[in-house]
Amino acid sequence: MSTLILKGTLISAPAPGKLDILEGGYLAVEDGCVEGVYPRLPERYQNAPLEDFGRCLILQSFTDLHLHAPQYPMLGTGMNLPLLEWLSACTYPAEARFADAEYARTVSRALARELIENGTTRVCMFSSLHRPATLILMEELERAGVTGFVGKVNMDRNGSPDLQETTEESRRETLAWLDQSKAFPHIRPILTPRFTPSCTDELLRFLGKLALERNLPVQSHLSENTGELQWVRTLHPECARYWETYDEYGLWTDRTAMAHCVWSDAAERQAMIRAGVTAVHCPASNRNLCSGVAPVRVMLSEGVKVALGTDIAGGDSVHMFDAVADAVRASKDRRILDGWKTEALSVAEAWYLGTSAGASFFGDAPGFVPGQRLHAMAVDDSRLPPSPHPLSAAERFERCVYRRQSGAIRAVWSDGRKVFSRSPD
Amino acid sequence: MSTLILKGTLISAPAPGKLDILEGGYLAVEDGCVEGVYPRLPERYQNAPLEDFGRCLILQSFTDLHLHAPQYPMLGTGMNLPLLEWLSACTYPAEARFADAEYARTVSRALARELIENGTTRVCMFSSLHRPATLILMEELERAGVTGFVGKVNMDRNGSPDLQETTEESRRETLAWLDQSKAFPHIRPILTPRFTPSCTDELLRFLGKLALERNLPVQSHLSENTGELQWVRTLHPECARYWETYDEYGLWTDRTAMAHCVWSDAAERQAMIRAGVTAVHCPASNRNLCSGVAPVRVMLSEGVKVALGTDIAGGDSVHMFDAVADAVRASKDRRILDGWKTEALSVAEAWYLGTSAGASFFGDAPGFVPGQRLHAMAVDDSRLPPSPHPLSAAERFERCVYRRQSGAIRAVWSDGRKVFSRSPD
Repeated sequence: MSTLILKGTLISAPAPGKLDILEGGYLAVEDGCVEGVYPRLPERYQNAPLEDFGRCLILQSFTDLHLHAPQYPMLGTGMNLPLLEWLSACTYPAEARFADAEYARTVSRALARELIENGTTRVCMFSSLHRPATLILMEELERAGVTGFVGKVNMDRNGSPDLQETTEESRRETLAWLDQSKAFPHIRPILTPRFTPSCTDELLRFLGKLALERNLPVQSHLSENTGELQWVRTLHPECARYWETYDEYGLWTDRTAMAHCVWSDAAERQAMIRAGVTAVHCPASNRNLCSGVAPVRVMLSEGVKVALGTDIAGGDSVHMFDAVADAVRASKDRRILDGWKTEALSVAEAWYLGTSAGASFFGDAPGFVPGQRLHAMAVDDSRLPPSPHPLSAAERFERCVYRRQSGAIRAVWSDGRKVFSRSPD
Repeated sequence: MSTLILKGTLISAPAPGKLDILEGGYLAVEDGCVEGVYPRLPERYQNAPLEDFGRCLILQSFTDLHLHAPQYPMLGTGMNLPLLEWLSACTYPAEARFADAEYARTVSRALARELIENGTTRVCMFSSLHRPATLILMEELERAGVTGFVGKVNMDRNGSPDLQETTEESRRETLAWLDQSKAFPHIRPILTPRFTPSCTDELLRFLGKLALERNLPVQSHLSENTGELQWVRTLHPECARYWETYDEYGLWTDRTAMAHCVWSDAAERQAMIRAGVTAVHCPASNRNLCSGVAPVRVMLSEGVKVALGTDIAGGDSVHMFDAVADAVRASKDRRILDGWKTEALSVAEAWYLGTSAGASFFGDAPGFVPGQRLHAMAVDDSRLPPSPHPLSAAERFERCVYRRQSGAIRAVWSDGRKVFSRSPD
């Protein structure tokens, strides 16, 4: 059995809004799994290899439950358009470039590296509709140490001349991709109808059947923008609500992640709760594309499962520290919109969404729980300016969420393996 | 005469929403002043020293028209409180530490360096109420190459036991500080009543008289938060509106910068226009403290002078690239609040606010205008990921605004002097 002890200021999120904080604590890891968290090193570990991170914060690593790999090169451009125009003008041309395998590899490798260096070890990620590029993306994520789900996008209508499949192509390529995906131990396939306007009923039916037969997870978009809602109503007059277009074909289950849910009303939220669908809140994207402000406080109090996504490249940062801070800020936007009637999220609540809540989509319990594979990072905040008073661990943690510290992450563990380390400058 | 030629992709903001873009252009500088911008190098400059920045963007440097130096160490903490509670719990204790000169020097030096390294060369800055610390701050800004205005804060009521002056102390210390401030060629004093609730009528009257007699600029806060508005109404039942508490004492002129103006109504905005007061929009701070969303589009269309501030540490970033992006995003929040009736700001408009509009508070015309002292920076975006298509200069510029690139600034000039340079890694 291989044992490792990590020493530092251990902070984890065992429940929404709650932080377990242990300064100078010991995190024992056996064969890549958390064994326990201890204020003093147990006798049996006295001779075990120990990595001492001093005053560094040792935190759960991030789960980014919604992002688009082929949009990574667009990051920070085209922010002046609303969703549907933005898809045609910016996004589809960028995704069409994934037809070029070499380009897809360059982009995938750079993205995978940026994710790991910034502490994101689990993802639900959209590729493009291209099977070869999707397999390359999976390979590069696997190589870098990222784990989770990647989907070949399905879209057989309303795409662009360069970015659309026939229904038959979509079926065939999806089946071939699923076969070829078995090569990756840490990156698994997720069915990915882009969104209702991109998929014929026939294609949605095929995907729903596949999800059921092979017990596959599903990701898509839901109720992001009012123009999109209107379009879905026109396309599906038989469905009273957007979510029904997914439910009708078996794509609405407790293994489904739906990005955005900005405009989900009480009925749609109840449908999420009943089915166990996860809503993926993407605060930066919703703001950049002027989509609206998701009612996250209401979702949480009703019992909707909510996790966080960067949604690059509607979002402008791959870094989940930003997504956590943005979730707090978006909840303040929502508070203002609601006439100060809903409470803003605390940093601890937003942190939970970006770590433990996302981890639950992969079947993990919240926090550093014995028996679970280690997903963690060590963060060095020693280069931040002197504080006017000695900071508590909780204050240091808050400051790390808000401050954008390049190079602060000293080490990252993903699925029990150390996948990144950097010496202090 | 000393001549210098800068070569690169020149981008400047000559008017709101307009960018002058010249790829491979030449910026001629004589004795620290812009001489002209040329697509080809004029014959007379063939032998002049030339700095070739290749494909780097050469941009106007930033003007940060509202920030609090003693709050720099608090950056990214205490974000869960609204304004008035936050002042008592976080801000006043942090500012009280400026009683310690050595501490003030450490903080001032670190802040000055971060400003310059990130392209902010002109500021309107609050110090604390301490005269020695304020002089140390001015000295450190001067040394680093920052220019502009710094104010010793005046507050003779509603402070804390550790952070308040008597009216007499405030008068005496202000006069002594003004005398001692003459030592600094690039950093000049600005009168700084903290905000109406912090100053007695007697103190405001004294400051207004001083502003008139010595032709001094003024900075303060206005209409940031609804609780503050209510408090001002209670303190000044004789004034129908917040702005009148400043106007009554001669602190409302075309050399006045008022931070926030989130809740300024049409009458207050008209009073700004009449007097020529500059509203300093601080989007990050307004969001972090859940103050509200300033109606910047409306202000601009009515003709209010608007500039940008980071407002650290209500704001969580000293970097004006962030403030520019946040101004665009805040205008989208406002658009959502306004039921999609007001237009969002373009990147070019927000950029104008963070550069040319701020420069006008120091008497400068917008853009790279002949005869003006050079305030500029060279930005290297070559380490950003490959784009799906060749980016135009305008797209590269937008991307630099949204992406947080540490180390991208290669050189900074302030008041004609090169104050920072960094080699490519």
